[in-house]
Amino acid sequence: MEPDPFNRNCGSRQVIDRIGDRWSVLVVLTLADGAKRYGELAQRIDGISQKMLTQTLRGLERDGLVTRTVHASVPPRVDYELTGLGHSLVDLVAGLEAWATTHLGEVEAARARYDTR
Amino acid sequence: MEPDPFNRNCGSRQVIDRIGDRWSVLVVLTLADGAKRYGELAQRIDGISQKMLTQTLRGLERDGLVTRTVHASVPPRVDYELTGLGHSLVDLVAGLEAWATTHLGEVEAARARYDTR
Repeated sequence: MEPDPFNRNCGSRQVIDRIGDRWSVLVVLTLADGAKRYGELAQRIDGISQKMLTQTLRGLERDGLVTRTVHASVPPRVDYELTGLGHSLVDLVAGLEAWATTHLGEVEAARARYDTR
Repeated sequence: MEPDPFNRNCGSRQVIDRIGDRWSVLVVLTLADGAKRYGELAQRIDGISQKMLTQTLRGLERDGLVTRTVHASVPPRVDYELTGLGHSLVDLVAGLEAWATTHLGEVEAARARYDTR
């Protein structure tokens, strides 16, 4: 059977959730130019909780989009890096970011109209 | 200030959630070729609950992506249609769908590896 997110049983619905999630988008964009440490990700993605960053990284790792490498240093250094599959997502999530920032004003104006009608 | 989803106070984070949400993606794709009635949307998007479809349509309408038109027929007919802003999203959400269906097998294989290690 061809994957089809219009079918309730198709796993591609979950994949859309993964790649369209705000935190996944921001992590993938941050890793687009190379490996980062946990603390670098936490600093770049303003306001993300430790719980949410850990959960997002684990989800991305489980889905084969990010690798986690523990370096044998003291203290141990942990790097996160996009896989080939993760890199194939970069243009798409950059498109989401670009649409959101370009059209934010229009969306906010529409909301204000809706809420006062 | 330029919109920047890396900033915790920027509304563009919410916009990413809206456009990357699985139900928004499926509604926008269904409306891409023209207006549809509520029942047509419910039928096309297999397994969506009435509550979730109503909530998704209301969110898309509030954000200026979809219009809702009540026709004075008996019984009244309600059509949903993409706005110009909504149409500007079609290629992007089609890209999400295409990525998800193309790479579903790789994602599922990665999950299976992760879960058995």
